Amino acid sequence: MEGFEILGYSASAVTVFTFLPQVLKTWKEKSAKDVSLMMFVIAFINEIMWIAYGVWIDNMVIIITNVLMIIMCSIMILLKLRYKNV
Amino acid sequence: MEGFEILGYSASAVTVFTFLPQVLKTWKEKSAKDVSLMMFVIAFINEIMWIAYGVWIDNMVIIITNVLMIIMCSIMILLKLRYKNV
Repeated sequence: MEGFEILGYSASAVTVFTFLPQVLKTWKEKSAKDVSLMMFVIAFINEIMWIAYGVWIDNMVIIITNVLMIIMCSIMILLKLRYKNV
Repeated sequence: MEGFEILGYSASAVTVFTFLPQVLKTWKEKSAKDVSLMMFVIAFINEIMWIAYGVWIDNMVIIITNVLMIIMCSIMILLKLRYKNV
């Protein structure tokens, strides 16, 4: 594997974990008043687009990255709806 | 331009706007207690990786997408540090 491929896969791997700190923080503190629901709705729609793109060009890295992100994003939307006024 | 390319560019364009609703919400409400700083720190580091990857493989779409995202992400980190306890 060449250097640029290692960098690309590493960047993808880090991307997957972007939403995790927010999910953990909201889960722990049970408060999401200041969190933007719209941010996660846009991310959700965007991840569907990326999954469709990944399927179309048959790229498993894009598919796996975005399936994991859409799971995290869905959990965050549910947490936000539950704790929106807290 | 083929269909899969249009889908890819559209997905990139939507990605750029992911953080915008959070920036606007925090700017307006001057409160970011519930927002995870770690999420945006991870995103910041990740965008540097993506920009480096984009430069390496000479892909302007990846470079432009992530330069715009890192600007948005930086604004959000500054807002979070300013309003973290509100």
